[in-house]
Amino acid sequence: MSTLRVLSTAHGGEGGYDADMQTENTLPTRLLLGPGPSNAHPEVLAAMAQPLIGHLDPAFLALLDGVQTDLRTLFGTDNRFTLPLSAPGSAGMEACLVNLLEPGDRIVIGANGVFGRRMSEVAHRAGAQVTRIDSPWGEPVDEAGVLKAIQDESPDVVAFVHAETSTGVRQDPEVIARHAREAGSLVVLDCVTSLAGLTLELDRWGIDAAYSGSQKCLSCSPGLSPLSFSERALERVRARKVPVQSWFLDVSLLDGYYGTERVYHHTAPISALYGLQAGVRRALAEGMPARSARHLEAAEYLIEKVQPLGFEPLVRSEYRLPPLTTLRIPENLGAEGESALRRRLLTQHGIEVGGGLGELAGQVWRVGLMGENARLECVDRLVWALDKELNSNPGTE
Amino acid sequence: MSTLRVLSTAHGGEGGYDADMQTENTLPTRLLLGPGPSNAHPEVLAAMAQPLIGHLDPAFLALLDGVQTDLRTLFGTDNRFTLPLSAPGSAGMEACLVNLLEPGDRIVIGANGVFGRRMSEVAHRAGAQVTRIDSPWGEPVDEAGVLKAIQDESPDVVAFVHAETSTGVRQDPEVIARHAREAGSLVVLDCVTSLAGLTLELDRWGIDAAYSGSQKCLSCSPGLSPLSFSERALERVRARKVPVQSWFLDVSLLDGYYGTERVYHHTAPISALYGLQAGVRRALAEGMPARSARHLEAAEYLIEKVQPLGFEPLVRSEYRLPPLTTLRIPENLGAEGESALRRRLLTQHGIEVGGGLGELAGQVWRVGLMGENARLECVDRLVWALDKELNSNPGTE
Repeated sequence: MSTLRVLSTAHGGEGGYDADMQTENTLPTRLLLGPGPSNAHPEVLAAMAQPLIGHLDPAFLALLDGVQTDLRTLFGTDNRFTLPLSAPGSAGMEACLVNLLEPGDRIVIGANGVFGRRMSEVAHRAGAQVTRIDSPWGEPVDEAGVLKAIQDESPDVVAFVHAETSTGVRQDPEVIARHAREAGSLVVLDCVTSLAGLTLELDRWGIDAAYSGSQKCLSCSPGLSPLSFSERALERVRARKVPVQSWFLDVSLLDGYYGTERVYHHTAPISALYGLQAGVRRALAEGMPARSARHLEAAEYLIEKVQPLGFEPLVRSEYRLPPLTTLRIPENLGAEGESALRRRLLTQHGIEVGGGLGELAGQVWRVGLMGENARLECVDRLVWALDKELNSNPGTE
Repeated sequence: MSTLRVLSTAHGGEGGYDADMQTENTLPTRLLLGPGPSNAHPEVLAAMAQPLIGHLDPAFLALLDGVQTDLRTLFGTDNRFTLPLSAPGSAGMEACLVNLLEPGDRIVIGANGVFGRRMSEVAHRAGAQVTRIDSPWGEPVDEAGVLKAIQDESPDVVAFVHAETSTGVRQDPEVIARHAREAGSLVVLDCVTSLAGLTLELDRWGIDAAYSGSQKCLSCSPGLSPLSFSERALERVRARKVPVQSWFLDVSLLDGYYGTERVYHHTAPISALYGLQAGVRRALAEGMPARSARHLEAAEYLIEKVQPLGFEPLVRSEYRLPPLTTLRIPENLGAEGESALRRRLLTQHGIEVGGGLGELAGQVWRVGLMGENARLECVDRLVWALDKELNSNPGTE
């Protein structure tokens, strides 16, 4: 029988690195500075340990109502249909696309990284005619290219990524969204790494469907995808000629449970939602102005501190995504060296940073300073460990 | 800011009902005797409160390996592709069907309740030609009808439910599975309410794809769907002419992460998997012979104790599903009375039982004695509360 030990957390730099070796029943303590998950606050962890109640219990439905209200605030929307989908962000992406697209529909996707390309793959599988406008990884979406495609094709849907987790680029959504709406297109926005890290204004920007993830700037456990659909988007779903290909992701069926009827669809992930409640409350208690300023300050401090060690930011300052910074690996490290160095940061210092993804594999690191981890102390711990690994004389260890 | 209180659990009858009123930040304590979730053991709850580590951390991948091994044991299979899908059981159902069916493929579904019908709906949406063989709710699948349909149609897939959570019927899978395989069909089995409550033998029965849920007889939090595909099923997926309609549920992509390559697909739900590890270990420590005997004993005790109160089992004894018993509501209660009585059990006694679903709404209760709750003490608490509500003089309270 297992005897589980709950170790102290390493969030926010308050907890020191616990050097205990992992045994069968204990887990190492990590400072999670990769592309997510970030470290969850002890309040979030304690919330998940609360005893279960039923998914149709009035007490649980009241909790869920509160979570939905709080998510609206964080998304910057009045969308009634705003809920935590019972699956990770990738499923949130798929929910947006398979509900809004019918076979043969046209979609224009602005792609500047892994997640724009993933949107394209998901839309293809939904039977859509996809026009993908690529731009170099590390640059924002090719706005002129997307606007031209909107003009040429009058697409049913326009989709792009607000916060590209593979490149660390922040996209200004306003211009594309305005042109798309003027052309009668619905606008889908990937907010996986921006929700609760940047101030979102879905309604002001004119976004019709957006999705996020629980494990990034909300600092909750992975597995939930906050999701929001405008009334305009819901009307499009109601007007479909063929059913949504996914029963599990069908927003009309989801609306039966998360709306006022409370009809059973699937069993909601109770414990994860306890944790999400605690996470969104923490974000709202801090307030988005202070929270986004904290993310910005931490990211700027990171760049200032790692440049002397040879790591240069990939992205120009005006497009940088504070929760996720991509750093070019010093040339003298090489692809093999960067991987070995990341492994040493993990095993010797308990610090996780992310490697490059897709085209940028082996070329950049992805350093997440998200949610609870967007703090100067986290940067200090990383820089201290990095400096030690890069500059120590191996013979003296 | 929230100050969350962790209340004592009500599992296994060891914890008394906590009469604290629910306030904004506390949750009521419930004995969960509905169709799931069941109460999680404190070990499972404590496991979920462990600090997060990354989904590509070697320590996490080792944990995941162990969970996958343990799930194989519980499913009774050597299937390499056995994993906890990052979404509820309904998504597990969809994963089985959308991977194995291509547009135009034929499927025969034996349906004797809500979940057989749901399979049919999901298969329709995948573009399959569906032959649904219905049988009365509360009866097993119409075996002769299914065998005839297999003979007539040589379907690509045959699917049915091992443990119908809407009716409390247990299906013997062997005869249908054998005939289906002989006809060259793949066999899909819904094991949502049987895994870890009944001894499963997927390999001996000849099942090609099966799915379950974490919140039933495993007594973990809802949100994960244990899933298993045979090599024969994986070959069918590899031979597809069109891509799987769902990117999120594509087993070839899932295999990249859960197999040996460990390629990022989506971020696994870390905390839920900590809980699942604890839950499967508890099940294996007890052993399935003892565990299934405990479920049977509890269900038989329930029926013995509620018959004097006017509740009769819907299902004949040879087909009863021990983890979930459907009870006909006494005629003198009526539809309104049964609902009010369930509400009083919940609010006055902290006990959740399930109402009827679909065709059986208002006619039966669904009493789950699953996992940690398959204990005589749980029955005693329910019967005591039921007796009090039915037989007390309201004037004396």
